[in-house]
Amino acid sequence: MKKDIDRLMLEHQIDALFVCGSAQHNPAMTYFTGGVHLTQAELIKVVHQEPVLYYASMMEGEEAARSGLKVLSYEALQINQQLEQYKSKPVQARAARYQRMLADQGITHGRIALYGMIDAGSAYATFRELNRFLPDLEIISEEEQSLLLLAMATKDDLELERIRKMGKITTEVVSMVADFLTSQRVSKQTLVKSDGTPLLIGDVKKKINLWLAERNAENPEGTIFAQGRDAAIPHSSGLDDMPIELGKTIVFDIFPCELYGGYYYDFTRTWCLGYAPDEALKLYQDVWDVYQLVTGELKVGAACPQYQKMTCDFFESRGHTTVQSNPKTENGYVHSLGHGVGLHVHEKPWFGRNADANDVIQPGMVFTIEPGLYYPEKGMGVRLEDTYMVTEDGKIELVAPYPMDLVLPMKKV
Amino acid sequence: MKKDIDRLMLEHQIDALFVCGSAQHNPAMTYFTGGVHLTQAELIKVVHQEPVLYYASMMEGEEAARSGLKVLSYEALQINQQLEQYKSKPVQARAARYQRMLADQGITHGRIALYGMIDAGSAYATFRELNRFLPDLEIISEEEQSLLLLAMATKDDLELERIRKMGKITTEVVSMVADFLTSQRVSKQTLVKSDGTPLLIGDVKKKINLWLAERNAENPEGTIFAQGRDAAIPHSSGLDDMPIELGKTIVFDIFPCELYGGYYYDFTRTWCLGYAPDEALKLYQDVWDVYQLVTGELKVGAACPQYQKMTCDFFESRGHTTVQSNPKTENGYVHSLGHGVGLHVHEKPWFGRNADANDVIQPGMVFTIEPGLYYPEKGMGVRLEDTYMVTEDGKIELVAPYPMDLVLPMKKV
Repeated sequence: MKKDIDRLMLEHQIDALFVCGSAQHNPAMTYFTGGVHLTQAELIKVVHQEPVLYYASMMEGEEAARSGLKVLSYEALQINQQLEQYKSKPVQARAARYQRMLADQGITHGRIALYGMIDAGSAYATFRELNRFLPDLEIISEEEQSLLLLAMATKDDLELERIRKMGKITTEVVSMVADFLTSQRVSKQTLVKSDGTPLLIGDVKKKINLWLAERNAENPEGTIFAQGRDAAIPHSSGLDDMPIELGKTIVFDIFPCELYGGYYYDFTRTWCLGYAPDEALKLYQDVWDVYQLVTGELKVGAACPQYQKMTCDFFESRGHTTVQSNPKTENGYVHSLGHGVGLHVHEKPWFGRNADANDVIQPGMVFTIEPGLYYPEKGMGVRLEDTYMVTEDGKIELVAPYPMDLVLPMKKV
Repeated sequence: MKKDIDRLMLEHQIDALFVCGSAQHNPAMTYFTGGVHLTQAELIKVVHQEPVLYYASMMEGEEAARSGLKVLSYEALQINQQLEQYKSKPVQARAARYQRMLADQGITHGRIALYGMIDAGSAYATFRELNRFLPDLEIISEEEQSLLLLAMATKDDLELERIRKMGKITTEVVSMVADFLTSQRVSKQTLVKSDGTPLLIGDVKKKINLWLAERNAENPEGTIFAQGRDAAIPHSSGLDDMPIELGKTIVFDIFPCELYGGYYYDFTRTWCLGYAPDEALKLYQDVWDVYQLVTGELKVGAACPQYQKMTCDFFESRGHTTVQSNPKTENGYVHSLGHGVGLHVHEKPWFGRNADANDVIQPGMVFTIEPGLYYPEKGMGVRLEDTYMVTEDGKIELVAPYPMDLVLPMKKV
């Protein structure tokens, strides 16, 4: 949680956090600003001090102030004269500005941790230059052990509420998709629109985008709506021009966020329209059984990877290959069981190979449980995913309940 | 254009381009992939060779292949054993992978230019490490003089077509907004919804998002719909809870792109609902006059900043302060006349202070012309913006024509 940041900074021996980039679709920045719109900004948080937000454009001052943070404009740095010498040298000019911002916050040496989505070339060149200006400053990339990701892994009440709201929006849209699909006419095993042409995956995705937009949500990384063989390729997002057929497994994985890059929700159902072939029913049963097993065992204090092991052991007992029995398998259970959800659709805690000692279920955590089985050669895949939340008092709750049925009966049969 | 990249690489003495990050909302990557969905990828383009796209997840191989590029998985690098030594050292592991990718493309020294949106900390740490592994490799950030931005500044036919389509979508949505606003009832100078409550800016923005989603477009950086005093703050996006009133200037600046970060369009109208106060009419006339003057003079071969000067001179002749007469002014004409539009909403060519010798109107360029006048203390601002395109044969065309009326008469009066 945000309140852990000072403690984490001390533990990690970090004197200041330096966050750069825009204030949209930039989780590290949004974590502090809450979600105002700034085309260019930097935030400096010195240990035991309030964060300060620097904004580039005089025209964005009022927008910056809406963050509730202490804000300062580039103009207020009063270094225009100094910057004259770096005219047409944007890297040096930016590094000089950063040097001044840090000096204003009392930082001329020590260790700063760097965050924010920006152009890789700018980042490399600018901070290399800053390091030339301030040779006693150590610029740290903490990567997976990032204290910000550690702080983000547990959410405060306001964050949990925003995720709950996204859960409600997500399941509302899923319910509308189910209703839309089952209301179509069917001809030769294929769903057909009122104009007689087949209903395509692209048509469904358009509806999804529409229904999300109506709810002030977006899906910046798209939606997986993958049928048949594509359902057996976990990251296939589905082909827009594919007609939707009865009796095929459809993996529908939807992971929208608040507009302009806010909090996410993550959810998957597998559907067969009209009926399910025996083989799909059997796969579905195995996934459903392991989902019930794992979610029944979730408890605060447990290491996340133990649930991955539980899942692999169970699937193996049912005769499936898993990433435990063969790390390179593309058949059976081929991914990890879950991940944290917040300002990133995937964040700590981790359940798979990248988990570490911090990946333990704790109050404030929000994470998915998403077992699946994939058989590309059989043209079918099954995944079930819900997002769980651990409340302050340690209760683990399913954020947005939704029916888990595999078969959706068509209404006009 | 893409076909200029090899020439530009030679001119800039760059041996390879290295692009990193996801394949969504990452212009440098989308420029090459066209827009496939990859959570993590790198692209290397060696001079006079086809670009190669490396993708992280085995599960994304088919999606990667849809780019039409030569694709290779991390797995195909066969360096897992080598990476074992960097277990729990993600920076070193990534740098080692980059080293191997570059070696596979024949690059162990020379100059590479770095692109792509990634975490600033990762970028700095990883490329510093790569430079330790390959001390004879020079890693370049070209910033404003980036050869990729230079290539992007002129578009090929396929790109022009995608921008034309976005222009059509944009003006369709603008037309729906105009129709929606003028169809409302009015009570005490304020638009009211059927439930009797005031129509708010937030209601209009929701409609805009919806109508964009229906057309497979998005507005990742939001939409400006700013009324009264906010209309006089060029970057104010407008307050969601502000009721919409008659006779106020509304600056409606909409800049949507293709889903998941593709080509943009950029468009602004200023509207007064019902009637316009005399002072707004006068400002509008000045903006309209300079728009006509400038767009009538556009020609291939002209330096873009000359139109900024033309605009400032004209506004000054009408008694307005401009950034030419006072660079810090917040009254009068406070910004630059235009900018290129492509995979970035703002890109080369530049018309303002950041313009250089390359910012000359050329075939394939797409740019905005957007004069405006702003008077925060009078509570009014006016801006008119259209996007223009230069065809291969040098014809300069307004991409998506739309009426320029200031006053939109209410239908139910």
